[in-house]
Amino acid sequence: MIKKIESQGYYIEIGNHTESSLQQLLDNDFAQAKKVIIVDENTHDNCLEALLTQYTALKEAEVILLPPGEENKVMEICFQVWEALTEYKIGRRDLIINLGGGVITDLGGFIASVYKRGVQFINMPTSLLAMVDASSGGKTGIDLGPYKNQLGLFAYPICTIIDPGFLHTLPDNEKVWGKAEMLKHGLIADRSHWDALKEKDVHDINLDDIAVSVAIKNDIVLSDPKEENERKKLNFGHTIAHALEAYFLDKSPLPHGYAVGLGLLVESKISMDSGLLPKEEYFEIEHFILQQYDKIDNISSIAQTLLGYMQNDKKKEGEEYNFTLLQRIGEASINHSIEEAIILEAIKVIDAQF
Amino acid sequence: MIKKIESQGYYIEIGNHTESSLQQLLDNDFAQAKKVIIVDENTHDNCLEALLTQYTALKEAEVILLPPGEENKVMEICFQVWEALTEYKIGRRDLIINLGGGVITDLGGFIASVYKRGVQFINMPTSLLAMVDASSGGKTGIDLGPYKNQLGLFAYPICTIIDPGFLHTLPDNEKVWGKAEMLKHGLIADRSHWDALKEKDVHDINLDDIAVSVAIKNDIVLSDPKEENERKKLNFGHTIAHALEAYFLDKSPLPHGYAVGLGLLVESKISMDSGLLPKEEYFEIEHFILQQYDKIDNISSIAQTLLGYMQNDKKKEGEEYNFTLLQRIGEASINHSIEEAIILEAIKVIDAQF
Repeated sequence: MIKKIESQGYYIEIGNHTESSLQQLLDNDFAQAKKVIIVDENTHDNCLEALLTQYTALKEAEVILLPPGEENKVMEICFQVWEALTEYKIGRRDLIINLGGGVITDLGGFIASVYKRGVQFINMPTSLLAMVDASSGGKTGIDLGPYKNQLGLFAYPICTIIDPGFLHTLPDNEKVWGKAEMLKHGLIADRSHWDALKEKDVHDINLDDIAVSVAIKNDIVLSDPKEENERKKLNFGHTIAHALEAYFLDKSPLPHGYAVGLGLLVESKISMDSGLLPKEEYFEIEHFILQQYDKIDNISSIAQTLLGYMQNDKKKEGEEYNFTLLQRIGEASINHSIEEAIILEAIKVIDAQF
Repeated sequence: MIKKIESQGYYIEIGNHTESSLQQLLDNDFAQAKKVIIVDENTHDNCLEALLTQYTALKEAEVILLPPGEENKVMEICFQVWEALTEYKIGRRDLIINLGGGVITDLGGFIASVYKRGVQFINMPTSLLAMVDASSGGKTGIDLGPYKNQLGLFAYPICTIIDPGFLHTLPDNEKVWGKAEMLKHGLIADRSHWDALKEKDVHDINLDDIAVSVAIKNDIVLSDPKEENERKKLNFGHTIAHALEAYFLDKSPLPHGYAVGLGLLVESKISMDSGLLPKEEYFEIEHFILQQYDKIDNISSIAQTLLGYMQNDKKKEGEEYNFTLLQRIGEASINHSIEEAIILEAIKVIDAQF
């Protein structure tokens, strides 16, 4: 059984990929097209063969193998892929399939939509994080120096095919990290989703849980595709997360989901300290987040540096720090201008020294 | 008097820039915004001062100075500009003004629309070519190796402000090159425009002539913004032109307008040899083009190499060479599949040895 969700001019399918519309697309729309599959070393080893075995039309595909990890979500890699696409004489009517986690779908979507002013692409997320977040919503992008997704554009795939079966290829910690985006969906829009996830071990996250998260995100995206207002709710946790990732990028890069987990907590603290989120709800969040996402040693000693990274955040408007905050679990509120002192204080909550 | 033309969610103004909507935009929409002006060495010396004198709000603008010429329409330059924008802490609500010829508007539009998933920009074209072509229509892009505009996207400015007064800053040959795109507009859509231009010295090209060209292009773009069909008419002359530019890029780069002039002739010859364009109309075109655009020595000896570049043309679909051709002067016809032999023969018409 495939669940199908309509989005911004494309669709999202959740279920076993063998039942997805991929075969039909390959037989019809792309029967004459050249195909390219972008993978990283992990999905090359763990996911690609299933695809090539199932879809004979993909046996002839050019496979572009990228090094894994956020530190490779950069222009130099794009450049190499564009040169390869040129060598393969890929044209506007051909097809790119992004098979991988959030780095591959962010990067591959950017590569496809800038090449010849836009080649069609399909996202096939293989990590929990990419399934519930990166592979839908139209945000593509790469990093510039320490700045996450500083370059990119809104561009939509033909479809996103989410097969929860690929989750078996992931180590447990990858799933814990991906779960952070699901928790976010619960916190900003659906108390019952948060409650359900609290009870669940990551091994038990199933198709229905994923579908709830995808639907929450999709509803928000459809109401405000270009992030003028409502969509800012999805940034909850991310101002802090991006600053953490920027700081650690050239040291020991933090997984995005882990940074988001900690970001959710810090921004919940800011929500409470701003008088918005009731104390008991904050402590519920704190208790649960700290069970899953470890604090960082001495992080408050570099809090000023983190503020520096926030200065260049895409979400920033004018001279103020603009945050999405929680009013309660299940309800977010956008456009809160927050003073530095409150941010600095809140960061302490993820410092292992406190 | 400003002529205003509505386009794809933005507008084009033609007239003295002091009467344009720029002052109003600076006073209202961008009163709080940071401003960046992208110029090349030519427009820095010849056009920038007029702008800074007229608009006090621009006195505080960051000016980004780029080296001139097609050979600089590359990713390395974009990268430097993105780093500068990051250093200036430019955000989504700020403003970039592209002041220059086609290289600056193509490149600046690309830079702006990829930075933080899109910063607003205004095009102020200063060359005839950019006024009548590059600064409107939403095509932004940069080159990849020898391939023209291989990377880019469709992205629209807030407005394009065309001040024909800037033409006085141009050398004559620049105007002759820019005129090629105007001739194209006449050839594909308006016999009377072609006739009027034939009689005119480049010094006499005026606001009304420019407005006719802009309107022809705009009508076509609005009917098919993403170049699925009708817009391909605007590619007339460009398959050959891009191949010529690709070949000469690392030797002695051809100005785009000059390559288009020759491209119009070769593709008119292909139109005649395919039985589409009447002979007398072809000879009228040949006579007039060769008056203005010099043939190239021995170009037919590298005709096979030119075909190689055409293999990777964005306009290509599948294995065939897809051309826009003329049925008569003032009427183009899209999607003609042409054999190599006809192309090779037609290239001889711009070879100085024949």
